[in-house]
Amino acid sequence: MAVKNAFYAQSGGVTAVINASACGLIETARKNSKKIGKVYAGRNGIIGALTEDLIDTSKESDKSISALRYTPSGAFGSCRYKLKGLEENRAEYERLIEVFEAHDIGYFFYNGGGDSQDTANKVSQLSETMGYPITCVGIPKTVDNDLPITDNCPGFGSVAKYVAVSIREAGFDVASMAKTSTKIFVMEVMGRHAGWIAAAGGLANEQEGDAPHIILFPEVTFNEEKFLKKVEQSVKKFDYCAIVVSEGVKNKDGGFLAEAGTRDAFGHAQLGGVAPVVAQLIKDKLGYKYHWAVADYLQRAARHIASKTDVEQAYAMGKAAVEMALKGKNAVMPTIVRKSSKPYKWTVGEAPLSKVANVEKMMPKNFITNDGFHITDKCREYLSPLIKGEDYPPYKNGLPQYVKLKNTPVKKKLKKSFTVK
Amino acid sequence: MAVKNAFYAQSGGVTAVINASACGLIETARKNSKKIGKVYAGRNGIIGALTEDLIDTSKESDKSISALRYTPSGAFGSCRYKLKGLEENRAEYERLIEVFEAHDIGYFFYNGGGDSQDTANKVSQLSETMGYPITCVGIPKTVDNDLPITDNCPGFGSVAKYVAVSIREAGFDVASMAKTSTKIFVMEVMGRHAGWIAAAGGLANEQEGDAPHIILFPEVTFNEEKFLKKVEQSVKKFDYCAIVVSEGVKNKDGGFLAEAGTRDAFGHAQLGGVAPVVAQLIKDKLGYKYHWAVADYLQRAARHIASKTDVEQAYAMGKAAVEMALKGKNAVMPTIVRKSSKPYKWTVGEAPLSKVANVEKMMPKNFITNDGFHITDKCREYLSPLIKGEDYPPYKNGLPQYVKLKNTPVKKKLKKSFTVK
Repeated sequence: MAVKNAFYAQSGGVTAVINASACGLIETARKNSKKIGKVYAGRNGIIGALTEDLIDTSKESDKSISALRYTPSGAFGSCRYKLKGLEENRAEYERLIEVFEAHDIGYFFYNGGGDSQDTANKVSQLSETMGYPITCVGIPKTVDNDLPITDNCPGFGSVAKYVAVSIREAGFDVASMAKTSTKIFVMEVMGRHAGWIAAAGGLANEQEGDAPHIILFPEVTFNEEKFLKKVEQSVKKFDYCAIVVSEGVKNKDGGFLAEAGTRDAFGHAQLGGVAPVVAQLIKDKLGYKYHWAVADYLQRAARHIASKTDVEQAYAMGKAAVEMALKGKNAVMPTIVRKSSKPYKWTVGEAPLSKVANVEKMMPKNFITNDGFHITDKCREYLSPLIKGEDYPPYKNGLPQYVKLKNTPVKKKLKKSFTVK
Repeated sequence: MAVKNAFYAQSGGVTAVINASACGLIETARKNSKKIGKVYAGRNGIIGALTEDLIDTSKESDKSISALRYTPSGAFGSCRYKLKGLEENRAEYERLIEVFEAHDIGYFFYNGGGDSQDTANKVSQLSETMGYPITCVGIPKTVDNDLPITDNCPGFGSVAKYVAVSIREAGFDVASMAKTSTKIFVMEVMGRHAGWIAAAGGLANEQEGDAPHIILFPEVTFNEEKFLKKVEQSVKKFDYCAIVVSEGVKNKDGGFLAEAGTRDAFGHAQLGGVAPVVAQLIKDKLGYKYHWAVADYLQRAARHIASKTDVEQAYAMGKAAVEMALKGKNAVMPTIVRKSSKPYKWTVGEAPLSKVANVEKMMPKNFITNDGFHITDKCREYLSPLIKGEDYPPYKNGLPQYVKLKNTPVKKKLKKSFTVK
């Protein structure tokens, strides 16, 4: 059998460790060069496949590929673009097949979250419905930690660590200032529907009085009265109150506490700015002086404080994807399987893409305390191993030395261009 | 001569390394126990002295004191409280003398910025005007880097590093997303009147196209038209635009682009929220999708990414303060003297408090490019050494292990209490 090339693309919001998955995938493919040909990356995700805008990763040195392990963001460009169903937009699938055939691509690796696993699953159906033989393997990635089946998602552990470290540090700061100045600190974190990232902030609270004192989850309807009472209690007891608030917190009408009003390409509401809303409410009702922060992209790009566990798992997922493909497995995604929490042991499992696509994993109810403002011991036991270990990038002149790839284009073979809508 | 005790206090906004100064001071005092007695820290700065709320640092283990070197924030509590002139509030000075006499305090160390060096200077005048012998040494501290005479201020280098690392990471992130999603990233940083912190973001731009593409300084009046043109150019050339904006940016009427409307205890306007204003302006005028972050306290508390140079200098300032006091120097502040930039060499100098108090050092004009949107090579040469080197705190369970001191109170000796207004 002739050796087939592989297509790899990054999709959706990027993370501090998605490139570690790319690193694991490309390094493993290079070690199996007798079984797998070149790895072509899609420039800007699946759009690169549709527009025949492929990157030849074989032009990158081993050193550059190895540097992907410690470089945040998507080295080949990502995109927010979801393939429609085969019935709705057959032209897109026909185009994919044209491009794959033209470049002798037999493997399709798609590195993304729920929406992206749905795309991977649809592409896997090409084999059957359109008679084009392709092996499809999804690679999990999402800071939101909301993919099903896998115990956790690469990308999440590093955001979790950033949020826990940051609220600990800000908590120390506010505690110093509380006597004559700021008593309230509100830190806004990502998480549209699931409160995993906000929950991670709770890990910084190891002893009574440690920040954060309050966490606002998207899973818990915001109750102004209960919240203000809790803030006041914290200030009376500890002199200050540090709060982690998820961007997705909703009021009792089901609306977001702060909604920017714009929507992303997947139709999700784009959020931002709930921290100032919460801070101002406290000022208005209780009179305390506040500071607030919105971490936004800083949290998911913060490779400088990545979790070692997360980096290792991201790499392992990329490596496993190639190994699964070489074993002939199709329409699957490698997963992280937890063997034990104390000591933390995990292994690589697998899940069918059909069961991963478009399923959002919420936090279990018993991960949130009864009052709705913090995490339980059960939640700590789950989260704690995910932020364990440091994995610092190399520095020069005080700055992390992240790699920028050459991203050499593969020569186009098709005459027709394709416009992505 | 009997051995006198020392008073040490932290003042104003805290930093990632002010405790490293405390560490240098207390460790040096301990080594000179034949010449200097106990170090009493003011709980919440000078307020601790006025209210006779002193902390006995001799109750802390060597290990705990040594851990201050890697613990952010003010371990003894800080305050925003400025002593009035002797003529305006003689009662405060009389009270200080009562407390110092009661606790046999002969050394006064005050760790802070311009306002705090003013307080230290006033206290030093007690010797002459009120006949109480006390040796006063200020210790420089401010993230704003705006103290005169000293080449730079402890606390600044670490914020500078945080800002440069963060905008580099966020820049990588936005570059990945720009094709189909976010093209604009705006990061708001501290700096009311001087653009030192915003300038530090410019260090991340090492090669053409690197983030940040635009810096908005408080020194440069905001020109909407020129700014929008620059944003558009950046998006056309690099596909995206990463912006660092100082909280203190002003419009042509001299008002802050974003003003929260509240004022701190020193009467300074409390700012926050210029990033969303700038981002929305771009969206409204150019239509680009944006994300924004406000780092706020996270930037100055970020001990996890502190500059090694900064930590060493902060420690050296605390150490030098004790050494100066033991040499009988009064009303002085140790300074950082730059010997050369390449290679970076510095030594400890000294400045009279009278020349430090209430003087704000602005950025030299030739540190900002002619178009007003970036830093010059001269500025890079100045800033670059200050962020050099990493100095990671110890971690356990994925979290930095910062110390919380016991902060044992010294038994009060005075019958009268004192109310701070």
